[in-house]
Amino acid sequence: MKIAVDVMGGDFGATPIIEGTIEALKEEDFSAILVGDSSVIESKIPLSLKDRVEVVHCVDFIKMDDLATNAIRRKESSIFVATDMLKSGQAHALVSAGHSGATMSLATLRVGRIAGVSRPAIGAILPRIDGGVVLLLDAGANVDCKPEHLYEFALMGDIYAKSILGYSSPKLGILSNGEEECKGDELSKEAYALLRGHPSFIGNIEGDNLFDGSVDVVICDGFVGNIVLKTSEGIADAIVHLLKNFIQESSVSKMGALLMRGVFRKLKKRLDYAEYGGAPLLGVGGNVIICHGKSNPKAIHNAIKQAILAHQRQVNKKIAEAFEGKEELKSNK
Amino acid sequence: MKIAVDVMGGDFGATPIIEGTIEALKEEDFSAILVGDSSVIESKIPLSLKDRVEVVHCVDFIKMDDLATNAIRRKESSIFVATDMLKSGQAHALVSAGHSGATMSLATLRVGRIAGVSRPAIGAILPRIDGGVVLLLDAGANVDCKPEHLYEFALMGDIYAKSILGYSSPKLGILSNGEEECKGDELSKEAYALLRGHPSFIGNIEGDNLFDGSVDVVICDGFVGNIVLKTSEGIADAIVHLLKNFIQESSVSKMGALLMRGVFRKLKKRLDYAEYGGAPLLGVGGNVIICHGKSNPKAIHNAIKQAILAHQRQVNKKIAEAFEGKEELKSNK
Repeated sequence: MKIAVDVMGGDFGATPIIEGTIEALKEEDFSAILVGDSSVIESKIPLSLKDRVEVVHCVDFIKMDDLATNAIRRKESSIFVATDMLKSGQAHALVSAGHSGATMSLATLRVGRIAGVSRPAIGAILPRIDGGVVLLLDAGANVDCKPEHLYEFALMGDIYAKSILGYSSPKLGILSNGEEECKGDELSKEAYALLRGHPSFIGNIEGDNLFDGSVDVVICDGFVGNIVLKTSEGIADAIVHLLKNFIQESSVSKMGALLMRGVFRKLKKRLDYAEYGGAPLLGVGGNVIICHGKSNPKAIHNAIKQAILAHQRQVNKKIAEAFEGKEELKSNK
Repeated sequence: MKIAVDVMGGDFGATPIIEGTIEALKEEDFSAILVGDSSVIESKIPLSLKDRVEVVHCVDFIKMDDLATNAIRRKESSIFVATDMLKSGQAHALVSAGHSGATMSLATLRVGRIAGVSRPAIGAILPRIDGGVVLLLDAGANVDCKPEHLYEFALMGDIYAKSILGYSSPKLGILSNGEEECKGDELSKEAYALLRGHPSFIGNIEGDNLFDGSVDVVICDGFVGNIVLKTSEGIADAIVHLLKNFIQESSVSKMGALLMRGVFRKLKKRLDYAEYGGAPLLGVGGNVIICHGKSNPKAIHNAIKQAILAHQRQVNKKIAEAFEGKEELKSNK
């Protein structure tokens, strides 16, 4: 299988993306199509891997502060070229750490949506205290949603959790301001009514249930999803910042922190998004993994692993089948 | 000044609420009206404080799983009686750790809204890394909002930050999925347009800015606000849980944790909601502080301090004045 990797547009340039691809090539079974500046890429690929790497030269790329809506006209840009390789079947999956809005809109417009899907969604994969993960979608693709969209996110998230995350019977919840059915805003309450009767649906969940293992797939609109993700990052950063400052205030605590290095290493690893790879874009007719702009080599490696799994386990085919029967599913509830 | 304290309906019964009131009476200058079961209250009040405590006997109360909408018919309940003491002027402020929906709807219906306020809002006070606090509103009173409501929350939050939190020029932001003006859902973008030109307004902020000191007052609808609060609690709990587990895995790290006791104590104190008291209900014509159902005596004491400040600094009068000029403010933008 061939994976197209957009090496341009990440916050730290091409190097960590190329390095992550090399790491992945050493451990996983695939060929890479590296799309970007060949003068940067060529020198970094070890001779032993050259036969598994194709370089597609592109120098233009979408900058983080460019408008996503302009991406469709930037036909020379790395993400445009990489997306078209996915569209034409030259690549079986696409991994990008560039402008996520551009990746999303190009994938939607050029590759196209799976029949029956109104809005593709980004699925963020977050760590839980029990060592498992929770899939949150939509994590930012769609800010204004209708109940029907949330219903679709639920169907896609359920399939992703079963196929990729290893949950044979995922617990699927709607993120709300209370557990009771009567809680929620208009959008979430109508989505609740649509999901009632879905075999994975466990009802509303609250923000403090996100990480405690009580739910595997969490549904919300992309406005709420983005805010929840950023808030989680913010509070984790704040706690780490406070700990570091308090430790510096006494030599006893500095000694304690030294003895606790192993604990902090484990905590960092557990909270590190790089461990979980990227976020799948669900609902388009190709395997797309959107990575954090600040992705390090490990994050890219893990994103490529996700892309390989998505292809092998035919996530999109399963989503297409579910959406063929969508109307039926809803009327059965 | 007199503060009515609803001693019923908290998650841990009347005891922590009575104890918190006693702590406050020892340190602050006010009289307490304790509304609840006198057979429980009387025995707990020290003789030396008896002349500053009035007990209003009530045994009925709204349970946490009762519907808020039924509270208006429960005229014998402690929160109904306490709210009516605020309404009649017998009390200058009300503190309750009971059913927050019931407190909110009774305060709104019985005491009434300040002229010009369409929707009272709950302001949550959260710790920041710089030792300051951030006021988040609405924290859960109004799940479906119009842009006009968010504009009103902003006016009230701005006044509260100036009068009570000590920010002479508060930085006020809208919680959104990106900093740029073009980011946001329909609601937040329209609220942005209404707030443009407001002297405190700094634009959109993201979830990871909540705790980093870049903003003093954050505006969102109550659905998002509740989810943000609970998510913050959830991730803080998750990190503490992971730390405890990892520490148990080796004797070296147990020793380290022992040396770091002071650090953990400081962190706990900084994150402890009890340090910040309760959440003001802004927009009703009386001083109302809504406390966490799990409030300990310290939280009740701090909530009473907030109530005293709100009365002394005439927050509601200032809100009323701002709302008299509201149309003018908006047309000046």
